[in-house]
Order: sequence, then structure tokens, then C-alpha cells
Amino acid sequence: MPHPLTLDPDRLFPADPATRAIARTLYREIAGLPIISPHGHTDAAWFATDAPWTDPTALLLAPDHYLYRMLYSQGVSLDALGVASRRGPSSADPRAAWRLFADHYHLFRGTPSRLWLDHVFAELFGIDVLLGPETADHYYDRIADALSQPEFRPRALFDRFGIELLATTEGPHDTLAHHAAIQTSGWSGRVITTYRPDAVIDPEHEDFAAALATFGQITGEDVHDWRGYLEAHRKRRADFRAAGATATDHGHPTARTADLPPGEAEALFRRIVTGRWSPADAELFRAQMLTEMAAMSVDDGMVMQIHPGAFRNHNRWLHTHFGRDRGADIPSRTDYVEAMRPLLDRFGNRSDLTIIVFTLDESSYARELAPLAGHYPCLRLGPAWWFHDSPEGMRRFREMTTETAGFYNSVGFNDDTRAFLSIPARHDVARRVDCAFLARLVGEGRLRDWEAAELAHELTNGLVRRAYRL
Amino acid sequence: MPHPLTLDPDRLFPADPATRAIARTLYREIAGLPIISPHGHTDAAWFATDAPWTDPTALLLAPDHYLYRMLYSQGVSLDALGVASRRGPSSADPRAAWRLFADHYHLFRGTPSRLWLDHVFAELFGIDVLLGPETADHYYDRIADALSQPEFRPRALFDRFGIELLATTEGPHDTLAHHAAIQTSGWSGRVITTYRPDAVIDPEHEDFAAALATFGQITGEDVHDWRGYLEAHRKRRADFRAAGATATDHGHPTARTADLPPGEAEALFRRIVTGRWSPADAELFRAQMLTEMAAMSVDDGMVMQIHPGAFRNHNRWLHTHFGRDRGADIPSRTDYVEAMRPLLDRFGNRSDLTIIVFTLDESSYARELAPLAGHYPCLRLGPAWWFHDSPEGMRRFREMTTETAGFYNSVGFNDDTRAFLSIPARHDVARRVDCAFLARLVGEGRLRDWEAAELAHELTNGLVRRAYRL
Amino acid sequence: MPHPLTLDPDRLFPADPATRAIARTLYREIAGLPIISPHGHTDAAWFATDAPWTDPTALLLAPDHYLYRMLYSQGVSLDALGVASRRGPSSADPRAAWRLFADHYHLFRGTPSRLWLDHVFAELFGIDVLLGPETADHYYDRIADALSQPEFRPRALFDRFGIELLATTEGPHDTLAHHAAIQTSGWSGRVITTYRPDAVIDPEHEDFAAALATFGQITGEDVHDWRGYLEAHRKRRADFRAAGATATDHGHPTARTADLPPGEAEALFRRIVTGRWSPADAELFRAQMLTEMAAMSVDDGMVMQIHPGAFRNHNRWLHTHFGRDRGADIPSRTDYVEAMRPLLDRFGNRSDLTIIVFTLDESSYARELAPLAGHYPCLRLGPAWWFHDSPEGMRRFREMTTETAGFYNSVGFNDDTRAFLSIPARHDVARRVDCAFLARLVGEGRLRDWEAAELAHELTNGLVRRAYRL
Repeated sequence: MPHPLTLDPDRLFPADPATRAIARTLYREIAGLPIISPHGHTDAAWFATDAPWTDPTALLLAPDHYLYRMLYSQGVSLDALGVASRRGPSSADPRAAWRLFADHYHLFRGTPSRLWLDHVFAELFGIDVLLGPETADHYYDRIADALSQPEFRPRALFDRFGIELLATTEGPHDTLAHHAAIQTSGWSGRVITTYRPDAVIDPEHEDFAAALATFGQITGEDVHDWRGYLEAHRKRRADFRAAGATATDHGHPTARTADLPPGEAEALFRRIVTGRWSPADAELFRAQMLTEMAAMSVDDGMVMQIHPGAFRNHNRWLHTHFGRDRGADIPSRTDYVEAMRPLLDRFGNRSDLTIIVFTLDESSYARELAPLAGHYPCLRLGPAWWFHDSPEGMRRFREMTTETAGFYNSVGFNDDTRAFLSIPARHDVARRVDCAFLARLVGEGRLRDWEAAELAHELTNGLVRRAYRL
Repeated sequence: MPHPLTLDPDRLFPADPATRAIARTLYREIAGLPIISPHGHTDAAWFATDAPWTDPTALLLAPDHYLYRMLYSQGVSLDALGVASRRGPSSADPRAAWRLFADHYHLFRGTPSRLWLDHVFAELFGIDVLLGPETADHYYDRIADALSQPEFRPRALFDRFGIELLATTEGPHDTLAHHAAIQTSGWSGRVITTYRPDAVIDPEHEDFAAALATFGQITGEDVHDWRGYLEAHRKRRADFRAAGATATDHGHPTARTADLPPGEAEALFRRIVTGRWSPADAELFRAQMLTEMAAMSVDDGMVMQIHPGAFRNHNRWLHTHFGRDRGADIPSRTDYVEAMRPLLDRFGNRSDLTIIVFTLDESSYARELAPLAGHYPCLRLGPAWWFHDSPEGMRRFREMTTETAGFYNSVGFNDDTRAFLSIPARHDVARRVDCAFLARLVGEGRLRDWEAAELAHELTNGLVRRAYRL
Repeated sequence: MPHPLTLDPDRLFPADPATRAIARTLYREIAGLPIISPHGHTDAAWFATDAPWTDPTALLLAPDHYLYRMLYSQGVSLDALGVASRRGPSSADPRAAWRLFADHYHLFRGTPSRLWLDHVFAELFGIDVLLGPETADHYYDRIADALSQPEFRPRALFDRFGIELLATTEGPHDTLAHHAAIQTSGWSGRVITTYRPDAVIDPEHEDFAAALATFGQITGEDVHDWRGYLEAHRKRRADFRAAGATATDHGHPTARTADLPPGEAEALFRRIVTGRWSPADAELFRAQMLTEMAAMSVDDGMVMQIHPGAFRNHNRWLHTHFGRDRGADIPSRTDYVEAMRPLLDRFGNRSDLTIIVFTLDESSYARELAPLAGHYPCLRLGPAWWFHDSPEGMRRFREMTTETAGFYNSVGFNDDTRAFLSIPARHDVARRVDCAFLARLVGEGRLRDWEAAELAHELTNGLVRRAYRL
């Protein structure tokens, strides 16, 4: 007989009864607040076309590298899980792929994926048995059936989820056609874009040359000239702002910044666009561009997000055969203190500029990021991110940053996800973990209950609205 | 109506009732023990002159970079908070500065500053409402009034606080006149000095040349000659010992040590004093001087404290306009294993030498510092320091060092503060956090209750007395 | 009157009553499972000869650097504790050494050594008073008396401890005579070896030349020729497999790997064996050999264990006078992301190869190791190791790795010890800490009770059997 699937209403709250009661009270007040998702990777096409999703595997498994990386680590082939390779779509039967996933569902015990998935299965699809070999087909049929219903189409779910705002991420070489379609569609959902120029800033990006060419075409600027290149950024930032964007996003290998004299910056750019650059040049150019982007943010008011520290495509074979974003990005040690100084020397004392810094290196929370954010007016701390976007990871984030940076230099939660269906689950986990942390402070006499209640609202809605200028 | 201000008598104890009861019992026995403060930055002039403090802002806010850095991070100007710049004192009205502080008091939620301040307000000034916009004037008047009373003058507070010993920190170019005045004053308070020679050891210190000149005048030695320079240190160490010092203190960018052959050391010194040094020379000279200081400690018995890992004056603009020590020192990654080896090769196996090592890089606690201190006879672990001198920081210190180094290679608490009024609050937080940690060990069957009681005394008074040779 | 010695039956379980009850239930089911010890350093001669141990000091204190390093750190001489030096055995009277140990037993409060020792004293020797100055002789006599009884000889204890399998560690220059003796003795205990070739792989190892010579003699290969050297490894790996080995073990300063073209590898080897190598060559050769070992593992199925990150023999004086393994190995910062890439580029996607990676740098758990092990099919995470093989260390391991790598990419517990008598205590601590962690997940609604029960079995027996191919 299959095991029941139920969600513990007190999940993620501390076990101590007194602390749990405090957490429950705090949570009750904020559980129903709207979802504000200022940073994520859902596909704008979903909301532009409102087309139904086809099947459970295509929606939930094949695009989610959080899931298939775990199965892959235990020897399951990506092709069998429905993951597309460079040669094209997987040849796997979606139902067979789903069964394979169900066979290995125990691998997710103790992981946030398990929390998110169970939440989606129970709350969204109303399933009451645990996923496993015996229930794989029941799940597949139930989900497939639901997806064919109008109330499971993207816009309907957006509304049902109580999403006040959802930001997607696009590159400067993107036409923003889907966002335009959403804006003119008459639908009231607020889906905005984010300016993520990595592909035209990182000479080591495999799409650099192609993206740069498109960048030039879209803007009508000579993007192989330093001034034209910067002007093209300004134009596209304006386009993005017109499509709702309030922020830029920069995923760099390191947090390095530079502030070169104009002549040197131009000479560096020339080496970059003529292909005569060294890895050190590439790093320096990315560094310089963070400062250029900050300068533009001072002018146009866009909030900057800096996401450093991922070694992208670590698995060479996988990258060759399956391409980017296949679960093989690995965090590495990341410096901020020396790396960010050139940018901070130039703009650090401005309070009209907001730079939100993220990390994949938790050792920098208490040592570097909280002290920096607790001093520089322009800096804010992004939430626990990616691998650390989990109950233990979010707890460590609060424990290691709050005492030095306070709550008010943090910016609320980012779901940072392409798994649209999991967005309510992810925000719910974040809200519960924050309430648990606040409850501990109250229980230990470090905070009053009414202050914790105020903070729970701030961490859920207040800080994100202000930090992202929404 | 303003919110009440009360201190939870069980604050910082674990919420679990059984563990809390153990913590409470442990704490009750040590709460009233004398305060021993072997490392701090209070102003000896206070105790020499016993002059009353002028106003709340000048006493509590303007000199405390822990406080104003948080407000600065949220866009409040330092000048408006009463902080002096290089051009002179702030032009802000003290009461207006205080109101600005009160307006932003919520920023400190969840920080140790909030714990310390509430303790001072409630216990010392008897205030029973929380600080905020509505109560700013009430606070200002109440504190200002108190400060004009004789029982709030420095010596009276020293006695009231139950301070058995308070160490200040002075440079070799300091005359120690205030300490002499205290010693001849007839007052029984024990205020001792600490030998902190950074300004005459670090060629990159902005006061290096001036401090060196004074150092030569005070000692009558030719401090531009290597032998004279070392002799000057010996003389001043003797002077400091005569003024009660039992310890030296070394705040270096890194923990690097060196043990050069005498000829090389002398040649290096010559480059340093003639201004023909590179940054690498400066680092090497600081490294060599740690070993020279250790050699002198072997001779004169002074305990060495090494505080590495702060990137000083990270904010260039602030340093230019406001000077040093303005809340812009940022921790950075710090190595000990390679860095301290030259010194340890020479003196590591001596048990007549005590070197207390601190860190701002918590990743070194379990990885480097506890293993080193749990082996080398000369080494002891300084307590959680500066940004980590907080409930979570102190808890992590115990959790990450005790299993490898034991309790007995730690040295009790340092308040390390210039905020004299907060000293009882800081020691109280440390005692509570230690009792909470011990209570957990007892509750989990890892320690007997009578052992925890012994340890609570050791962590409060025993270890500090022995480590600092008081 | 001496203090009683009792073991709390609920030790190491969380204090919260509900969580404790869950932990207790989980533990009850797995407490009696057999001990599987796939990695350790006990002496095969004990089980080959089954000779009685001579005295408490020689058995428990003098060989255990976990213990005497703590006493040494507080100024106790190693010679007085019975520790042999390069000049020969200690001159200390064993009973006097034991008394010295007892005098300092309080130093171990809060350490895992204390937990292990109390367990051994109470459970194995039936002692009911705490070790201390007053009880030193009682302990000495009681233990000495027990050791003279047949039921305290090595094989009897092996059986009494419920050990299903015990792996020792030998070098390629070892004859494996003791293992042969065990195999032909008729005794049913399963003691296997592990192939640890460091001494013939690390040119910086003090025994390199001698070990290499023996390696050549034992194998009959020309080990000064690259092909002969590799063939000698293949032969000895086959010998070790015949003596039961299923795994190799590699203790390198770093995790660096290399995959040189054959010609370069051979040229490097020539520099190594002719003594014309630089430190960089030594590092590169160790790196290359990890990849060569992985290639052989693909062929012969042996599991690889990589233990990087210890700075060996940090205390130069101690190394000179007392030799290796005297408690002066200090962890240092360790990279995996760049370091392991050459090996992973070649073999990372194979699921027929198992590489178990350990660390002494906890900052790499969540940042590097869990993401790597949660992706690459060949990788598994070794348990909390050495200094981190402790209640807090094991808890941090689970908290920082489980959310990204899951439980199923970990491999159960290693006691990694030469202290044979402490093996049941060490496994008991690991089981309790795992049950405590699982209980917290259940209590917080993150895992079902039946899943936790399954996982408790897996963490105790299932994962280790599969990972080590037992």
C-alpha cells in the first residue's frame, strides 16, 4: 500500500513547543501575503501564449536540473529522464522517464526539492499518496489530466498563486516580444523582465559573438566601438525599463570589479571585440563592465544584482553533449573584499544606487558580506541562493548575517527558479524558515513579539519592494 | 504609547525548558563574579581625570562605530550623527543626532548592539520604555541628567560595575601619563595598559614616521638603527610593565610571521626606515617583528595577542574625509597554518610563552586554530572577536573550537570595547552564551552538571586570569 | 570521594522531549547492528598474533595522538606520557604516565575523546567512577588486570564488539604477512587491508626512496621505469585484493589531480625517480598518480578514497625528535573544484568507478563537495573526518551536505582509528548523532518517521556496504 502524502502544517518550525507556537503565530499573519518574485527564470512565453503544458515530465522533470542532477549522480542517464541534448530532444517516453524519476524519489529525502515537490503534488494537484514506483502512473495521469484543464494554464496558475509580480530574465539580444505580448494582452498579471547582459559582456561565453551581433542589430549601434557598445547598453536598458524592468543581473565567475581610466577601458574593449584577448583580459573586462553598469544604474535607477562564484559547466563531457545549465555548475570560493573595492571606491557611498550581492560561498556571509553591507550605503545582501536556498541554508544565512548587517540590509526572498509550479512552495519554505528564526529570537528574549511580527512582514514583502524599487 | 523596555531574565538561554533550567542554574552562580577585562579600548583619561561625560550623543553614539556604521549603511550621514571628521567636530546638535539615532533604532533588531544598548538603558539608567522616535527626548534628558550626577562619573561606574581589572591599549609613543595619574591618585580601581606597537611596526600605518620619531624621543634610543630600535621596544615594554601591563597586542593585516637571519632582518629594517620599501617588505617586516616580539616575551613574560585579518579603512572616501576607525574595516580571509609557522618553529614548543590568537575568519576556527591551539604549548585561542562578538558568533566559536582544542586552550572573554558603559552588558552576554552552551552539553549527556559549573567559573574568571597572567 | 561514571542512555540526543523520543526510537532499531569499519589504522599484527596488550598506557595513551596532543598543548611532556621518540621508547614508567594522564583528564571536557574514553571505561572495563587523580591507580589496576584475561585479547574483543568487517591500511611495500596469517588462522574475523600507496607516490615522503626500493623487490618490477612502476602498482593492487582489499586510500596534501599526456607523465616520473624534482614536480606527480590510480580502479574495481588537506608534521622540532604522526598535522584550506577537474574530465561520468572524497576544510562541504557529489556519478562524500569526527562535526556535515547531495551520496561512518578499543564507542557516537539529525527532520515535518528509520539503517550499514563494495 502506498504511503500517504500529507504536509505537516507545522513543517520547518522548531520542535520546542513554546518556540513553535511563536513561529506559528508569526507565520499565520504572513502566509497569505502576495508573492513578489523579483528574480527568476520562468519563460515569458508561458504567460504570453498561455498555452497548456504538455505533460508532467516536460513540465516538472526534464527542465529542472535541481532534480535530474541528483538522479544523474546516482547513475541514471539524462536521456532516459527526458533531458534534451545538443542533438535534440530526448528520445525517452515521457511516462517512462516519469517512472524512472519515481523509482528514485527516495534520493531526495532531506533535500529542499522534496519539500517543494511534495507541496506541489499535495497542494496543487491534490494528490494524497507519496510518489514512488507504485504510484508513478497515478501521479502521471493525475498531473497530465490537470494540465489539460484551463485552471492549470500559466495565467490561471499565476493568479491562483497570488503572485503580485514576477520577474523573468532576458539578455540584451532578446527582443522582449513575449513581454510586449503580455503587456498588450489585457491580462492583468504583472510579469516584468530583468536586464542580464552576461552574453554580451563575457568574452568567454559561448554565445558572445552571436549575441554581440544581435545586440548591434537590435540597437542600431556600432557595438564593436567602445562608445557604441556602451550606448547600446543604455538603449537596451531603456527598452527593458519600458518592459517593466527595475533591475539588472550579472552572473560572473568572480565578484571582481575594475575602474580603468577611459583610454585603458577602450583599449581593453578593442582587444575583446577583435578576439585578441587573454583569460586575464576577459576577467578584467567583466570587472570593468560591472563598474560601467553601476554608472548606468546611477543614471537610470536600475538596481544591480551581482551573482558571482559559480564555475559554469564544470563537467566537460556533459557540456559538450548536453550544453549549458545541466546541473554541472559548481560553486567556488569567492572574494568580495578586494574584488569589489574598485566599484565601491567609485560608487560605494551613494545611497541612490542599490547593488544586491549574492554568494555561493557561505564562508563569506559573516566574514565579508555582512560587514560590507552593514557599512556601505549602496550595498544590500541577496538571500541564500541556489544550493543554499534551502531550510538549513536559509537558517545559516540569517544566523551569519543578521548580527552584523541587521535584517534591513537584506532584501527578502528570491525564488530564482524556472520551475514555475514550485514558486508558492519555495516562498512558503522561505516564510516558514524566517518565522522559525524570528521565533527563536523571541523565545530567547532577543526580540519582542511585535517586532518579530513587523519583521515577518518586512522579510516577506516590505524589503523586496523597497530594494527592487517595485 | 511607547513600547515597554524590559530585559528578559532568561535572555539568551535555550528555549527548551530542561536546558534552560540548567543554563539558569549555571548562570546564577557566575552572574555576579567580578568583571576582568584584559583587552579593550577605553580611554585612560576618563579614569585619570574622572571628569563627567558631557551628553548622551558624545558618550554613546558619536564614538561608537558599531552603531553609526549601521545607520550609515542605510543612508544616514555621519556628520548628522555627531561623528567628527578630519576637519573637526561634527556640527550636529547632540540632541538632533540622538533623535536621528532613535528614529533608526529598529535597524538594530537582531544585533548585539541592541542587546547591549537595552541593557545599558534599562539597568544603568533605569529607563522603562523602548528607544524610538517618541521616546528620543525622554532618553536624552534622562541620560544627560544622570551623567551630571557624581555616581555616573567614570570611577564611580567602574566600581559599580564590579570591575576587578580593566586593560586599555596604548602605543609605544604614548607617555602613559594617564596611567601614572591613576596610579598616584589614591583610587583603588585597577586600570592597566597594553603594549600595542603597531604604529611603529607597520610602515604602511599613516602615523608610522611620526610615531617612530616620538618612540625615539621617549626612549632616547636611535630608533633608525636596528639594534637601537629593538632596544627601544625593550625599554618601552619595561615602562608598560611598570604601568601594569601583562600583555602586548598586535593588529596586523595577516598572521604572517618570519624568522630572518639577523643580517637580513637588519637589511630589511634599513629599507623600512629609509622609506625604500615595497608592500612585500612592509609585510615581511611586520612578520619579522611578530617573532621579535615573541622573543622579547620569552624574556619579559608578556603575553602576546595577535589580531589579524582586518582590511583597515576599506572605504577610501570615508578614510579621506573622516579618518581611521570609522566602521569601514572589513574582515578578510586569513591563513594561520603557513603564516605562523616561522614563529612556531622558533618558539612553538615553549610553555613559558603565551600567544593568544584571534580571528575574523570563522572558517579557520575548526580547520586551523583549534588544531593549532590543541597542539602547540604556546598557543591559546582568543574569544570570538569584533563582528563575531555576538550571541551567534560566540556560540559558533564554542561549537567549532571546543571539540578539538577543549575549553582550557581558550582564554575567557574580551570585551574589546571603547564603549565603557556597555562593558557589563557585554560580559553578561558572554556569560549567558557560555552557560547556554554548557547547558546544552549537560542536557545532551556530554558533560556532568558539576563539571559545567566548574567550567562556567573558568570561562568567566579562571582562564582569563591564568592566560593573561593577572 | 570520586565522582561516579555513568553513561547517559540518551546522550547526544536533542534535549527537546518530542525530538528526543524520535531519536531514541530510531536509535533503538540500529544500536545493535554490526560494526562495519571500512577505513582505519588498527594493527593487523594484533589479530594475527592475538597477543595480549601489555598495559593501559601502552594500549590507550602512548599511541593515541588525539589524547597526548591535548596534554602536550598544556605543557605536559610527551616523554612523560610514554610516547616513543626517534631515540626509542619512552623512559616513563607506565603507571606514572597514566597518573599524569588522569591528572589532566579535565582537559577533555567537551571533546569527543572524553565521550569515547568514558564509553570504553564504563562499557568495556565496567568502571563506575570518573577518571581523575584519585582514581588513576584504580583505573590502571582494573584495566591491567582485564588485559591479562583471555576475553580481552584482540580476537575476543573483535567478536565481542560485533565487528562484521575491519579494514586496516597498508603500503605497497608491506608484505601483508599479518593478513595472510589471519586468513590461514582459522579465526572467522574478517580483517581486510586497504591499498595506501602514499609512500611510493609522494616524493616528499621521508620514506620514499626506501619504500620504492622495497616496492621493486616485492613486485620484481623495475619501479624506476614508468611502465614498470605502473605495473608494480597493478601487481600489488591484485595482491591487496587477494588479501580482501576493496579500496585504495590516498592521503595527499591537496586534492589536485592531473591528466598528462603519456610522454609528459613519463618525463615527470623520470625527474621524480632520479631525484631531480622541484616541489611543483612532486605536487604534479601526486596529482597525476591520482588519475593513474583511478584508471586502475576502473580496471580492477577498487574504490578510491582521497583524503587531502592535512599539513603533515607542522611542528618541526617535534618531527625531528619524535617523528611522524605525533598530533602535529594541521588541516589547511582545500580546493576541490579546480583540483579534481582533470580526473573528473576523464572519469567523472562513470558510474562503475567510486571515488570517496574527504575533507578537513568544512567550508568546502556546502560550497564544493556536496555540489560535486550531487552531480558526478563517480563521486561519494566521505563522512566527517579526523578533527571533525565529533558530535558537532558530524552534525555540521549532515546539515551542510544533505540538502544538496542527499543522504545517498554519503557512505556511512569511518572510525579511521588506531584506537581499537574505542571502535564501538566511535560508531555509537556516529549512530546517535545521525539519529539526532534524522529526528530533527522528522520533528520539523521534513521527513516521515518510516523514512528516517530506513535512513538510519542505510547510514549505519547499507551505504557503507554498497560504497565500499563489501
